Amino acid sequence: MGKQSTKELLLEAGRTIFLERGYNNSGIEAIVQAVGVPKGSFYHYFGSKEAFGLEVLNRFAECLNADLDVYLNDATKSPLERLKCLVEARCTRLESQQCRKGCLIGNLSQEMAEQSEVFRSRLNEIFTGWVDRYAACLQEAQTAGEIPDDLNVREYAEFWLNSWQGAVLRAKTIRSTSPLRTFQKVIFRFIPEIALEPANRGS
Amino acid sequence: MGKQSTKELLLEAGRTIFLERGYNNSGIEAIVQAVGVPKGSFYHYFGSKEAFGLEVLNRFAECLNADLDVYLNDATKSPLERLKCLVEARCTRLESQQCRKGCLIGNLSQEMAEQSEVFRSRLNEIFTGWVDRYAACLQEAQTAGEIPDDLNVREYAEFWLNSWQGAVLRAKTIRSTSPLRTFQKVIFRFIPEIALEPANRGS
Repeated sequence: MGKQSTKELLLEAGRTIFLERGYNNSGIEAIVQAVGVPKGSFYHYFGSKEAFGLEVLNRFAECLNADLDVYLNDATKSPLERLKCLVEARCTRLESQQCRKGCLIGNLSQEMAEQSEVFRSRLNEIFTGWVDRYAACLQEAQTAGEIPDDLNVREYAEFWLNSWQGAVLRAKTIRSTSPLRTFQKVIFRFIPEIALEPANRGS
Repeated sequence: MGKQSTKELLLEAGRTIFLERGYNNSGIEAIVQAVGVPKGSFYHYFGSKEAFGLEVLNRFAECLNADLDVYLNDATKSPLERLKCLVEARCTRLESQQCRKGCLIGNLSQEMAEQSEVFRSRLNEIFTGWVDRYAACLQEAQTAGEIPDDLNVREYAEFWLNSWQGAVLRAKTIRSTSPLRTFQKVIFRFIPEIALEPANRGS
């Protein structure tokens, strides 16, 4: 097992265990046990549990950001269509896990925002990066005439992201993915599509 | 200090400490220390930390439900006006605390839903009780012609509650109450008021 792969395995185990049990409730012991390496190995790669936690967060955010970019920059679809595909894909993925674990970023926000400024600050940056991406796509939708001209896209993007986090939270409590589908239904009802066929507007 | 008051003080301390640190991260030691009673005193009133936690939850829900009922059953206002007053009051209250602690029900849902079936089940009942109240008020608003006839009030009430929880979560991370005000602005924009002056509709 190479050095790189042990580090990767520890980060992967951290993500899984933090999602299942939260940060405070997950000891380094459980993480090294999951990978089958001695505790000294953990400290070879990471200076502290906090440094490890932040790296787990960063990896998770990188993956999610790359995934968001694939959907939201897909030039073969209209901007609103991209958002619809993204929400459908997210619902399907969380349904496949019965949405029992929630979102690592939402979970750690709930748990850590008040306890650790370094976590809060990083989580806030990650959320803001998501809002930027949604707002850019909504801006494109506005330019394409798919959503009303007077919609404040930044504000709406924030509302969208927060509502989604709330739906994921509720899905954990109700142990059903129905809140995600309710989100999907209601959020798109709330964007009056002022142009039914945006592709044909110029013709 | 009478028996009743020690029990009350322990429950009050539990609420504060669970809000600040989460459930797993709060020892019984910290709770009895906050009240200034010996640990044996805790076990005199509560069979276990779980039993105590559930009683903290129940007290919190009772208070919030009573508060919701005051706003949502206020016959001096139209149903939509009641919802607006409620949201304004909630925003103001959370602003006074800088919304740093979030909502106990949301926090414990995030932390405990996957870890304890007894917590998950009780949290789910509490959420459902809130949805019932919002849905009943929205139903009245629909009957009064304040919101569109074709709005599914139950679905909309669920969306509303989940979105609010998401806004509270985001407020913790961004350390600002702006997500609450964004919620307020967007959620009411999304209810097209089909009657501007509902009180005058019959005249």
